[in-house]
Amino acid sequence: MIKLNSILKLNKLVNNTTLIKSYSSKVIPLTKDRYTYLQRNPSYKSLEDSDLAHFKTIVGEAGIQANLNDVSELESHNADWMGVYKGSSQCVLKPNSTQQVSEILKYCNEKKLAVVPQGGNTGLVGGSVPVFDEVILSTNRLNKVRSFDNVSGVIVSDAGCILEQLNQYLEPEGYMMPLDLGAKGSCHIGGNLATNAGGLRLLRYGSLHGTTLGLEVVLPDGTILDNLSTLRKDNTGYDLKQLFIGSEGTLGIITGASVLTPKIPKSVNVALLGVNSYEDVQKVFRNVRSDLLEILSAFEFMDIDSFKVALKHSNLPNPLSETYPFYVLIETHGSNMDHDQEKLGLVLENLLTEGLALDGTLAQDQTQIGKIWSIRELIPEAIQHLGKPYKYDVSIPLPDLYNVVQIVKSKLADKGHYDPTGKNTDALIREVCGYGHIGDGNLHLNIVAKEASPKVNEILEPFIFEVVQTFQGSISAEHGLGLQKAKFIQYSKSPTMIKTMQSVKKLLDPNNILNPYKYLPATN
Amino acid sequence: MIKLNSILKLNKLVNNTTLIKSYSSKVIPLTKDRYTYLQRNPSYKSLEDSDLAHFKTIVGEAGIQANLNDVSELESHNADWMGVYKGSSQCVLKPNSTQQVSEILKYCNEKKLAVVPQGGNTGLVGGSVPVFDEVILSTNRLNKVRSFDNVSGVIVSDAGCILEQLNQYLEPEGYMMPLDLGAKGSCHIGGNLATNAGGLRLLRYGSLHGTTLGLEVVLPDGTILDNLSTLRKDNTGYDLKQLFIGSEGTLGIITGASVLTPKIPKSVNVALLGVNSYEDVQKVFRNVRSDLLEILSAFEFMDIDSFKVALKHSNLPNPLSETYPFYVLIETHGSNMDHDQEKLGLVLENLLTEGLALDGTLAQDQTQIGKIWSIRELIPEAIQHLGKPYKYDVSIPLPDLYNVVQIVKSKLADKGHYDPTGKNTDALIREVCGYGHIGDGNLHLNIVAKEASPKVNEILEPFIFEVVQTFQGSISAEHGLGLQKAKFIQYSKSPTMIKTMQSVKKLLDPNNILNPYKYLPATN
Repeated sequence: MIKLNSILKLNKLVNNTTLIKSYSSKVIPLTKDRYTYLQRNPSYKSLEDSDLAHFKTIVGEAGIQANLNDVSELESHNADWMGVYKGSSQCVLKPNSTQQVSEILKYCNEKKLAVVPQGGNTGLVGGSVPVFDEVILSTNRLNKVRSFDNVSGVIVSDAGCILEQLNQYLEPEGYMMPLDLGAKGSCHIGGNLATNAGGLRLLRYGSLHGTTLGLEVVLPDGTILDNLSTLRKDNTGYDLKQLFIGSEGTLGIITGASVLTPKIPKSVNVALLGVNSYEDVQKVFRNVRSDLLEILSAFEFMDIDSFKVALKHSNLPNPLSETYPFYVLIETHGSNMDHDQEKLGLVLENLLTEGLALDGTLAQDQTQIGKIWSIRELIPEAIQHLGKPYKYDVSIPLPDLYNVVQIVKSKLADKGHYDPTGKNTDALIREVCGYGHIGDGNLHLNIVAKEASPKVNEILEPFIFEVVQTFQGSISAEHGLGLQKAKFIQYSKSPTMIKTMQSVKKLLDPNNILNPYKYLPATN
Repeated sequence: MIKLNSILKLNKLVNNTTLIKSYSSKVIPLTKDRYTYLQRNPSYKSLEDSDLAHFKTIVGEAGIQANLNDVSELESHNADWMGVYKGSSQCVLKPNSTQQVSEILKYCNEKKLAVVPQGGNTGLVGGSVPVFDEVILSTNRLNKVRSFDNVSGVIVSDAGCILEQLNQYLEPEGYMMPLDLGAKGSCHIGGNLATNAGGLRLLRYGSLHGTTLGLEVVLPDGTILDNLSTLRKDNTGYDLKQLFIGSEGTLGIITGASVLTPKIPKSVNVALLGVNSYEDVQKVFRNVRSDLLEILSAFEFMDIDSFKVALKHSNLPNPLSETYPFYVLIETHGSNMDHDQEKLGLVLENLLTEGLALDGTLAQDQTQIGKIWSIRELIPEAIQHLGKPYKYDVSIPLPDLYNVVQIVKSKLADKGHYDPTGKNTDALIREVCGYGHIGDGNLHLNIVAKEASPKVNEILEPFIFEVVQTFQGSISAEHGLGLQKAKFIQYSKSPTMIKTMQSVKKLLDPNNILNPYKYLPATN
């Protein structure tokens, strides 16, 4: 067991494995060719030399990358990191001030040039790359910390600051960002906010709707909405910033943010438990939430299939002596190592005595902590090796969370698409497994097909969304809607909600220039 | 020192002193007569018998209280509890279902009948009572808990549930509401949400923007916005519920809410410190935040004047041996009494050794905890005995928070309105003192005049708001805008922000029937 001055080193060990840019290894088809239901909106202007010339007057030579005839040099901005979505924008703009963003949007709004805002381009649903020829507005050069107050812990920064760099800035001050996710080495805080990123420790540090104190946003007409408050309490009018958190760049472009940061914990502990049933996973959660109350920082679960595939792929030894139907990872963040270990030790003892945990291990040092987290963190990558994974990131009320996996398994088996015994080698689906953040009700449902095909798509969608709807779940817990799920929002939101959202979109972006074709069904 | 199974008993001891209905003891002037700049909007219809008859078909006899000719019997709904604001509504509607609220609003919207939503009517800024003859829609009969999940801690309830009753419902389950405030015995959860109530432990449990998972809201045209999610993570579209949190009933009427509740802590501790300067108060906060990290639940401060007046009024003995320029109250919520006391003891020892605290005491039992909280909680009431208090509830970035009190004191003294020595008995201002929630940057600035007069008003406003603006503070930290501060919002929000808010108001309430004359400057 270790006393850490900082958990940052730990995070670096375990979190940076997932984001490997893959678009250079193959030719990515254009989104418009793959999804033929998409049609370029003819009311958008096409880029001309005069537009580029005007942009240069705003951002200078250093702030523009453009080619009207050959978009190949813009590939890293046109394609997403998974190599699934690709647009054909002829122009990437990299403003270095809020004023420049304002002038760009004002011009684009007047000319009806469509714009896609882009942060670290680490999204999973195709939200940060163009569909057709939208102008890309990158926040790459908006990368300054504006202020930090060591007493309140409030940091104000540009939107293009990389999450990990903000952590590095905060570390000597004894603070850390309230969110943590695999993409931290590339993602921008502006993108985190625009997509309402959740991550591993939302359970403890809360959502960005709670930790964001202020935003600076440029509206589609160029208006700068200056709501960059550093106050925790401010009841003077509608909390407009909330509209932009999770709006995926469809209402405005976030250029600055004020975030309340927590102190770096002085002690970190991790335990792994083997559990007999999902019923018991819930009981463990209830007990742990009660007994570790203030120090609990993560409560993750994996089913046996997820666990096995991660072990196999990573060549890590099983930290427990046997295999169990479910695994639970418990992490604590606290201020006193002795206290935390005593609490955690007592909880584990009780869980074992009561039979709620069948087996368990408490990490003894940083390496062991890293190994246990690795198993959980490597699942997404490991699954890629089984075939073509179809990944669903859903929220389900806790009592029914794992029911979703069971129902999906049994319905796919009933129809002959999946054979849990593995004997039917003709079955299109090889594996169905579930893992995720129990503390947040967030299930990562992974379905691995032998190979990608329209038939598999047809089998899974909207079937999965229908199951999620049955339990009043969300078809997107944390990844967002982007292009991928825009057409499925009705499985999680009523027509009234969607209509009201559309009216808000129309109010703030009447020309519909921001991030079109995504997020919401078009109104016309 | 005590082990509490529940902090609820404690809360009852210390929190219920403030809300004493005072309107029965004197004749309250009508708001429209006191604030002559207010004019009834002639485009609103006046109530007629036919309207009352229609309302009866919706809510039945039990759901309506009305008299077109004599409004005196509606006094408890027309006047606020402070006896400052009074309208002359002829009709109070008490629907007992969301559907009834919908039918009422649909009718009022078509007829252009103005409506004021009313919860527990415990507000401080005149937001929950009519200005003229608006129909009052009370949430009194929307008072059922709809569901509670003991694993996730999510409670779904009607908007008219009283905060304390929700706590009583949750107590046997081991949970409590995430907010706590003086008015808990009367205020409705719907009103808490509509005003984004903060309270004593926002520092620990976060704001309602973070803890509210879903809302059911009836829009002005009767549309029911069904966003009553129980999910912690849901990234499917704009987070519309956030617009209604803190909108003070101007965009829609909240009829149901889904809230994430924390576990009741197993141990509660309270300490009181004497501190030499505001500079040191900040240092104490920084150290305490670091060393008590996960167990800190409140960090309150009082200046010597606030402290003295509370002691005098309450006849409580000074828990410390001497008087000091500043006092700090530290509370912890944790799961292990021994651990918490060890941490707190060590912190106090260090603070005393370093000279950051000049003196300190740790409550030894529930009575002592109650007494220390009482001093802090009795300040508002005690101040009333010095003269006519003018209360300002402001947020200021921490480094400058107490500067505001100093500047106000010195400027008032410079102009001869205030004599800190008390020798000039002609001075209009008798006392200027500050206390509040350091953890939230929330200052309660109290200015006591010899008596209320237009001259005092003129001296203080907009002067106080100008000082707050200098520090980029908020003129309303937690009390809201209501009628009182609607005309001062520009001191905390830019014209662009106000204009955008007005456009949102117009979008959702085009006929402006909900809670008129308040919150925002009128657009026409």
